[in-house]
Amino acid sequence: MSALVVINPNSSESVTAGIAEAVAPLHPFGIPIRCETLAAGPPAIESQAAADRVVPPLLELARTLEPEAAGFVIACFGDPGVHALRDETARPVLGIQEAAVATALTLGQRFGVISILPASIPRHMRSFAAMGVMDRLAGDRALGRGVAELSDEDATLAALAETGTALRDLDGAEVLILGCAGMARYRAAVAAATGLPVVEPCQAAAAMALGRIALGQSHRPGG
Amino acid sequence: MSALVVINPNSSESVTAGIAEAVAPLHPFGIPIRCETLAAGPPAIESQAAADRVVPPLLELARTLEPEAAGFVIACFGDPGVHALRDETARPVLGIQEAAVATALTLGQRFGVISILPASIPRHMRSFAAMGVMDRLAGDRALGRGVAELSDEDATLAALAETGTALRDLDGAEVLILGCAGMARYRAAVAAATGLPVVEPCQAAAAMALGRIALGQSHRPGG
Amino acid sequence: MSALVVINPNSSESVTAGIAEAVAPLHPFGIPIRCETLAAGPPAIESQAAADRVVPPLLELARTLEPEAAGFVIACFGDPGVHALRDETARPVLGIQEAAVATALTLGQRFGVISILPASIPRHMRSFAAMGVMDRLAGDRALGRGVAELSDEDATLAALAETGTALRDLDGAEVLILGCAGMARYRAAVAAATGLPVVEPCQAAAAMALGRIALGQSHRPGG
Amino acid sequence: MSALVVINPNSSESVTAGIAEAVAPLHPFGIPIRCETLAAGPPAIESQAAADRVVPPLLELARTLEPEAAGFVIACFGDPGVHALRDETARPVLGIQEAAVATALTLGQRFGVISILPASIPRHMRSFAAMGVMDRLAGDRALGRGVAELSDEDATLAALAETGTALRDLDGAEVLILGCAGMARYRAAVAAATGLPVVEPCQAAAAMALGRIALGQSHRPGG
Amino acid sequence: MSALVVINPNSSESVTAGIAEAVAPLHPFGIPIRCETLAAGPPAIESQAAADRVVPPLLELARTLEPEAAGFVIACFGDPGVHALRDETARPVLGIQEAAVATALTLGQRFGVISILPASIPRHMRSFAAMGVMDRLAGDRALGRGVAELSDEDATLAALAETGTALRDLDGAEVLILGCAGMARYRAAVAAATGLPVVEPCQAAAAMALGRIALGQSHRPGG
Amino acid sequence: MSALVVINPNSSESVTAGIAEAVAPLHPFGIPIRCETLAAGPPAIESQAAADRVVPPLLELARTLEPEAAGFVIACFGDPGVHALRDETARPVLGIQEAAVATALTLGQRFGVISILPASIPRHMRSFAAMGVMDRLAGDRALGRGVAELSDEDATLAALAETGTALRDLDGAEVLILGCAGMARYRAAVAAATGLPVVEPCQAAAAMALGRIALGQSHRPGG
Repeated sequence: MSALVVINPNSSESVTAGIAEAVAPLHPFGIPIRCETLAAGPPAIESQAAADRVVPPLLELARTLEPEAAGFVIACFGDPGVHALRDETARPVLGIQEAAVATALTLGQRFGVISILPASIPRHMRSFAAMGVMDRLAGDRALGRGVAELSDEDATLAALAETGTALRDLDGAEVLILGCAGMARYRAAVAAATGLPVVEPCQAAAAMALGRIALGQSHRPGG
Repeated sequence: MSALVVINPNSSESVTAGIAEAVAPLHPFGIPIRCETLAAGPPAIESQAAADRVVPPLLELARTLEPEAAGFVIACFGDPGVHALRDETARPVLGIQEAAVATALTLGQRFGVISILPASIPRHMRSFAAMGVMDRLAGDRALGRGVAELSDEDATLAALAETGTALRDLDGAEVLILGCAGMARYRAAVAAATGLPVVEPCQAAAAMALGRIALGQSHRPGG
Repeated sequence: MSALVVINPNSSESVTAGIAEAVAPLHPFGIPIRCETLAAGPPAIESQAAADRVVPPLLELARTLEPEAAGFVIACFGDPGVHALRDETARPVLGIQEAAVATALTLGQRFGVISILPASIPRHMRSFAAMGVMDRLAGDRALGRGVAELSDEDATLAALAETGTALRDLDGAEVLILGCAGMARYRAAVAAATGLPVVEPCQAAAAMALGRIALGQSHRPGG
Repeated sequence: MSALVVINPNSSESVTAGIAEAVAPLHPFGIPIRCETLAAGPPAIESQAAADRVVPPLLELARTLEPEAAGFVIACFGDPGVHALRDETARPVLGIQEAAVATALTLGQRFGVISILPASIPRHMRSFAAMGVMDRLAGDRALGRGVAELSDEDATLAALAETGTALRDLDGAEVLILGCAGMARYRAAVAAATGLPVVEPCQAAAAMALGRIALGQSHRPGG
Repeated sequence: MSALVVINPNSSESVTAGIAEAVAPLHPFGIPIRCETLAAGPPAIESQAAADRVVPPLLELARTLEPEAAGFVIACFGDPGVHALRDETARPVLGIQEAAVATALTLGQRFGVISILPASIPRHMRSFAAMGVMDRLAGDRALGRGVAELSDEDATLAALAETGTALRDLDGAEVLILGCAGMARYRAAVAAATGLPVVEPCQAAAAMALGRIALGQSHRPGG
Repeated sequence: MSALVVINPNSSESVTAGIAEAVAPLHPFGIPIRCETLAAGPPAIESQAAADRVVPPLLELARTLEPEAAGFVIACFGDPGVHALRDETARPVLGIQEAAVATALTLGQRFGVISILPASIPRHMRSFAAMGVMDRLAGDRALGRGVAELSDEDATLAALAETGTALRDLDGAEVLILGCAGMARYRAAVAAATGLPVVEPCQAAAAMALGRIALGQSHRPGG
């Protein structure tokens, strides 16, 4: 039976494991979910150059997996290769950033984004603008911690809570988005700390992708 | 076991039946889906006044059903009562219009909407603007057929194909949204006629709602 | 002689009295102004659910009063029922929120809104977005006082001055809007405290409505 | 008693006479309305250069009239000098373009503009964008007739009806704005021909200005 | 002496030759201009997947050329790798799409784009949205001719004139952008055929890049 | 040989001298640059009224200089007369504000503006909105120093650094624009103090104008 294939385009197996755990509540839907690590990717994707460089091997991996794939999620905030992959497959393709935003649009009027590093923010802004949702953005604030540092749980959670609170109180966010696939395990804690709904983007994308698989819905008419 | 409750706020059982059929492919997800008709509603909702008038009985029905509800979908394009119901329940609540738009955002750069009557369009425009997605809207064109007339299949399909083609060729739509719950059965035919992906809004909303139920995600942190 | 009918959709007579006082400077225009309280409304409208619930009785009251009405103002920030009432009457209909915004657009480049409670802000944001004026919005800040507490004059004025000053200095507002019909009496004091022009929304709506009555102008061609 | 001063910044007395006639229904409001012609202006203002050149003499005229003025309307679509005059007087100042747009925002979701010449349209677009209302604009179409030709009633009315119909049917306008002070007398006829509400901008501005005079409201706090 | 390096990311030498000819009028500025072909690129870039795939070799080529480069232009409409290259060099980097748009913003209020194929348009739309300039876009219309077919001069010019005229007359464009590096030689002819200013994007980008080199201006402070 | 004519519309020769120094790095391009002072202008342009009043003499000066002019730059942030001058000449015309914004769009995702006085900001906002780039604006903050005070170098630089840092840290600016022609000499120092690229608007406009002269590109097809 074909599966939803979730590709982590960085090479960190621990991130892939976090994603797999995040999407586990969707297993009862009955469609297998395979979480794959792009071995050719860098340990973390923290620049546009890094994001752009993973696209060719990511497309290659997707092509290899396509026969067993019912659909794809690209699990890097920034959505590298999402539109390119749609050029190459009729299967549903979701990026975690676009899915998180689409989800947040129905959870509160203005969304706030917790990014890892300040350098991520301009990249996100370009994406939110390309999505046409700038009027829904409350703010995007950086945690100031790279992907590698996210594994220090206490320090990360404290920084997440502080950043989320600033987005709520200073920027007017009513819903938060975790702006990196590597923050997957912190959703409930951030919700508790801020009193806001929190969107974990891998969950958002996997849920949307499973719906499309069930409905036979993709970016192509006979998708 | 609690169910996703889909409320058709008009009193037409045939529309409710069409919705039930549209969401049937989501049954394998394992969460029951109950489609309810708002008996107190009008046969069709074709004005803002009609939409506003259904909200109090709709909230009443939702309150009655809440103990058995894992989440709600309000199945009227225009999303009457969606924000009000969110004030009153912690369960996930999705409107079919907002869900269709959120879905379309990830299927093509500009979406076109097939409305029933010209008078629906300003209402839709207010909603799309309130969602902040006007730059993604290719156009909204009316079929010129009321809800009651949608049951004449051949004429309706011809009008749908013609309207969808105009949205594609004159307005630049890359994805179409069926702008009425009563068009549910025509999705595949419109996709075939236009060569575009077509979003059926009840499907879009039910799929999103099921994902949220599985993920424990709503507009409230402990939702 | 028919009158401009101003409907306060909450049941607080003191709010209606404040509205009547606010619009008194328009009496010399020669068109009678009747301020009516919606007895069926709640004491205050502080949620979307409350706003939605007043629409059916409000439409009923308007229908009753229509023979004597030259036009209508719905005097609740949030404009419940404004579009619905336009479906049902050819008389001019103004909501105080839309009229306040339309007025503010000609008084300064960016407007700030003083809301009563934080929960009002998302509702306002949806309305400002639906009006398409988000780029003109400097900010919307809550007073943190409910409608009932607005009668404590000293504390209310201090909070209004502080909130208005924050909108001016932190958000860049050049004109302020009092975001609740119940703040009518504070316009001059807030203007003095902030040095900014201040729009009282009932005044703004009544003035626009009287102009339309005189000009024979409504949302319908023969209005 | 001080008056609302309406300044026609072109030198055509016939245009001033048309404006005076258009605002006559506002006489019962009890505030005198004086319509003045800027003798130093050109016969028609049909370019940005012409619009910019009238500002200094217009400011001079306003300064001379200020002692007798309760407020000002600048009666040229394009609003030359409106912001400059606000720098120089505390009296209410309205431009007919901004007032027409502010009025149209409460009459329909998308407004269409009937301009005189194609060259007017970019100027209008800059103004609508500066007002932040581009998402409310259905379209702006030129009549193809200069100010001088507007006096040929039959030909002008035929062109107005045709242009208004195109704005309604091709662009989706729900309300029309007459985009030139010289079209004042055609409001009712265009409404009849198109079945849409039609805003005559001098009326819109004069009505708003009278309201502000009565309410003691201007762009300055003690205005 | 270091040069402005213009990289054509497709492998068609004839396109590179056309670019070189287009930028020749800038030789008197005294900064050498080197036009390079990305041998690793495809003959034409007609999809997002193709655009994404050229980025890694393009970054590699830029890295090789950097010691001799005073600045870079990436000469593919769609701007593949522009933001990535900015991550990797302090030299000025311009994409031809962004430079063409920035140029057009100062030549007319609404710009029209002549694309090669319909499939290019969604890609352009995402870019224009990411640039935040959607309100300045009149329209984007496809020529219906691939890069390879652009060498048939008569047929291409006829199609360009027809497309440009549609952008002017149906969409309201006041300035046109040639939406492909391979149309460079047609600028004057399209201007003559449409009576509109026409921006050739390689010229626009090269001119901007030379200015930055002279001024010591890049995306980095000490650029 | 005809020259690029840069007109400083205020009468301060010291500002003109600063502009001349700023554009000096562009002399190697081989096109002479003449910097002219509008003797009829005020010492500083610090209001819309002042800006509007300089347009007629500025157009007069441009007309006189046109025979020797290859193009024009109007060197006052606010761009008085730019569109008017385009009505009157086929030569390239650039305003320093629009050129600075167009340049900044390619240097960072959000630009911050350092204005002289708070009263300048609404004027700038109207211009940025008219340009359709509000989503790219991080913020506009006033230095709190008039044009005359800009000559006190130490105090001005301290204020520039503080304001630029606030735009970077509080508003999210990635690129700064000096919002007054009189700040020309501070570009490098502000870049050093903030670590951001800084656009000096006279440089930006002169560079763009020289490119257009070389390319034979203006707002008219045969420009």
